[in-house]
Amino acid sequence: MSLPRRLLCVITDEHSDPVELARMALEGGAGMVQLRKKSASGRELFHWALRIQELCREREALFIVNDRVDIALAMTADGVHLGQQDMPASAARKLLGPDAIIGVSVSCATEAVKAAEEGANYIGVGHIFPTFSKNKPSEPLGTAAIRPIRNAAQLPVIAIGGIYHDNAAEVIRAGASGIAIISAVSESDDPADATRDLVKKIRQA
Amino acid sequence: MSLPRRLLCVITDEHSDPVELARMALEGGAGMVQLRKKSASGRELFHWALRIQELCREREALFIVNDRVDIALAMTADGVHLGQQDMPASAARKLLGPDAIIGVSVSCATEAVKAAEEGANYIGVGHIFPTFSKNKPSEPLGTAAIRPIRNAAQLPVIAIGGIYHDNAAEVIRAGASGIAIISAVSESDDPADATRDLVKKIRQA
Ligand code: NI
Repeated sequence: MSLPRRLLCVITDEHSDPVELARMALEGGAGMVQLRKKSASGRELFHWALRIQELCREREALFIVNDRVDIALAMTADGVHLGQQDMPASAARKLLGPDAIIGVSVSCATEAVKAAEEGANYIGVGHIFPTFSKNKPSEPLGTAAIRPIRNAAQLPVIAIGGIYHDNAAEVIRAGASGIAIISAVSESDDPADATRDLVKKIRQA
Repeated sequence: MSLPRRLLCVITDEHSDPVELARMALEGGAGMVQLRKKSASGRELFHWALRIQELCREREALFIVNDRVDIALAMTADGVHLGQQDMPASAARKLLGPDAIIGVSVSCATEAVKAAEEGANYIGVGHIFPTFSKNKPSEPLGTAAIRPIRNAAQLPVIAIGGIYHDNAAEVIRAGASGIAIISAVSESDDPADATRDLVKKIRQA
């Protein structure tokens, strides 16, 4: 399946209720929700995923699960997002079949080409800007890195890392098909409104 | 699939190389290996599982994966072991099909009956004796708990927790079909020999 253009993907964070966050992000018009909570048990993820899946279907938004291919399979979710430390995309593709969305996090062209060879549908490229969401000892890539990585892999790019309403348009103009957001939504006083604002910014970019 | 009787299941621990530990356990005659390492990434588990699966097949031993149904699916492993915080057994059964082995950790008859209803093939009952393998704030169940829990669930019991060569036979006589071992093998100076000794003890019980 191909990815919609100018997609806003909201990723759940470590300390919010993921179902509530998803509900607000969808209310704000997010086109994709990614369930990600590294500290959660399989059982927690399973029950959250059931509910987020339902919310996404009501809004005709895509729902993907970080890392856990089994949780995605159990929901018939739209797909998974895999980090470099997760199961290889080729193994996930075998389990999920040809129609699933499989995204892979990359930070350079080499990883991007490998993701494409292993059957990814998109690459998550980052971090673009400085970020405090995760421990990121490396330098930010900057928006100029987006186009060469995208061209190397021949896959749509979802850019991630330090993207807020004031720089979201710049990321799209630099060649990203979409943006993935954690803190700009989850840390906002009004996550639905923060999402709405970001959706508008990337549509107008 | 039904579980062999007098089964010794060796579970990998947090700090050994799981492939080396599996190799030694199989050399010592373990009938089942469970790959379990909570701190590992999906990618690490995937690569270890590929190698342990191969070793188990050479020895005609069973191979199951803790928690990660996706890793088990990717290997066509014999099954999974699920804790109370993992994906429900019913969801795992749907993903793995009717022939897979699904074990569920329980510590009382209520959990055991639920595991049976959800499609488990065996229950892991523990901890039987005091243990330092994991943080166990609760009191050990003792061997007298095995038979009532087994009878409630009508499933074979693999007993776990504080089982060593000097009490393994007692556990089998108390009604367990098998025992699961972590530290009695992994902490031994000679894991193959420790396994061999335990296999002998439960055969002679
Ligand atoms: Ni925060």
